[in-house]
Amino acid sequence: MSMHSPIGIFDSGLGGLTVCRAIEAAFPGEDLIYVGDTARVPYGVKTAETVTRYSEEICDFLLQQGVKAIVVACNTASALALPKLKGKYSLPLLGVLEPGVEAALRSCRDGQVGVIGTEATIRSESYPQALQRRSPQIKVFSQACPLFVPLVEEGWIDHPVTRTVAEIYLGPWKNLEVDSVILGCTHYPLLKSVLQQTLGSEVVWVDSALETAKSLGDLLRNQNLLNPRDQGGSRQYYATDAPQKMQVLAQSFLGHSLGEVEVIHLN
Amino acid sequence: MSMHSPIGIFDSGLGGLTVCRAIEAAFPGEDLIYVGDTARVPYGVKTAETVTRYSEEICDFLLQQGVKAIVVACNTASALALPKLKGKYSLPLLGVLEPGVEAALRSCRDGQVGVIGTEATIRSESYPQALQRRSPQIKVFSQACPLFVPLVEEGWIDHPVTRTVAEIYLGPWKNLEVDSVILGCTHYPLLKSVLQQTLGSEVVWVDSALETAKSLGDLLRNQNLLNPRDQGGSRQYYATDAPQKMQVLAQSFLGHSLGEVEVIHLN
Repeated sequence: MSMHSPIGIFDSGLGGLTVCRAIEAAFPGEDLIYVGDTARVPYGVKTAETVTRYSEEICDFLLQQGVKAIVVACNTASALALPKLKGKYSLPLLGVLEPGVEAALRSCRDGQVGVIGTEATIRSESYPQALQRRSPQIKVFSQACPLFVPLVEEGWIDHPVTRTVAEIYLGPWKNLEVDSVILGCTHYPLLKSVLQQTLGSEVVWVDSALETAKSLGDLLRNQNLLNPRDQGGSRQYYATDAPQKMQVLAQSFLGHSLGEVEVIHLN
Repeated sequence: MSMHSPIGIFDSGLGGLTVCRAIEAAFPGEDLIYVGDTARVPYGVKTAETVTRYSEEICDFLLQQGVKAIVVACNTASALALPKLKGKYSLPLLGVLEPGVEAALRSCRDGQVGVIGTEATIRSESYPQALQRRSPQIKVFSQACPLFVPLVEEGWIDHPVTRTVAEIYLGPWKNLEVDSVILGCTHYPLLKSVLQQTLGSEVVWVDSALETAKSLGDLLRNQNLLNPRDQGGSRQYYATDAPQKMQVLAQSFLGHSLGEVEVIHLN
């Protein structure tokens, strides 16, 4: 393991490619290995025990590939599994939760932060706990939005149905002074325009992908693990199942086509 | 394995409980063992290879429990995995696809049948193939409805959003003479009232759960495996993950509460 080793990134499916995209934009010289657990997607409706077991299997695989650090590019796994993963593995491990929390606290003016995520992420209360650990006075509003991921995967990004669903989930926040909302699921940045229509354009939408790329840079720099190369990093994509729509959806998450994806079995 | 052995029933999650319900209503003396693969739910977005592998793991587990027959109470697994399962196991195996097809052909008046299901079920073309094998003149209209399962699981059974989504998926069928529609996913019978509002009350909605219970009776009777007892059958529920909402949702699928659920790991 050295500064020339690759960075491992994983998610329950394809959403984590938004994190990949932010990392490759910030550090084009880094070699990246991405694992999408498409055979067992989604994690957001499952228990901490199951999500942790699946995350460990993926980390074991990434370690076999010789990664120098692992980014848990899935909010549910970051909320439910990361503390246990940090106890088990000695390499640098970074989730998307802490970077999102830091950014929300920076941008929040009136001490009220909103968090939206999957059922499991919201139920875990990881976001309110992390926010209040850093800023005990802060008021946190949480809302699970279980239909957002299926709507994105259906391709209904800017669609009347999606606008109605957003209105149902977030309408009650209109009269509150929520000025900063954490997009606590990697699919949600794709819905930013619909969300802005619902809560207005003055709200700051915290995209954890961008924040995670910044935090990863700091983490690698501090440990002298940043690749000195500033371009030409390689990309390797693994998935546990290869649904047809993977290639189609990848374009919207990653901003470019996925190329070859190798299918792996993790159990 | 005898007429006194239990019947195994499995699904990717909870939807198969509608089949359980139909079987327990028709044969209250049978012992039933249900497995919901809630850790890896849903199957409807995954490939045939992965769905087959998961189905085999569940069949192996059910065989260890000494079942006399297995009901694949999941349309996706019936469409993608059943032929392979029948080749591998020697006990009676029944899916929900064939019974639904038989019922649709009986109720269809004008030779036009509609099929709705998950993305994987529709993509497999198993329904049109099975219908046309029996009745080569029949015209089949298929529509994947990927948002129906998340909408049911959100509890939006009779909800304006669900009506709009149904209108988008099925509106184009209004001008066709589709008089019989197969509900090709165990969640869909819960949406029957919304579907009736969309396509009118003259359409016959084929609920595979009821048809499967009838076919199972014939199958067991022919092989002299029907339990002679006419009441007091036991129920045992297994799941590969135990999401909180399992107990809540079970009520709508099963018509009564689930009682104790044992969590098992299949890999």
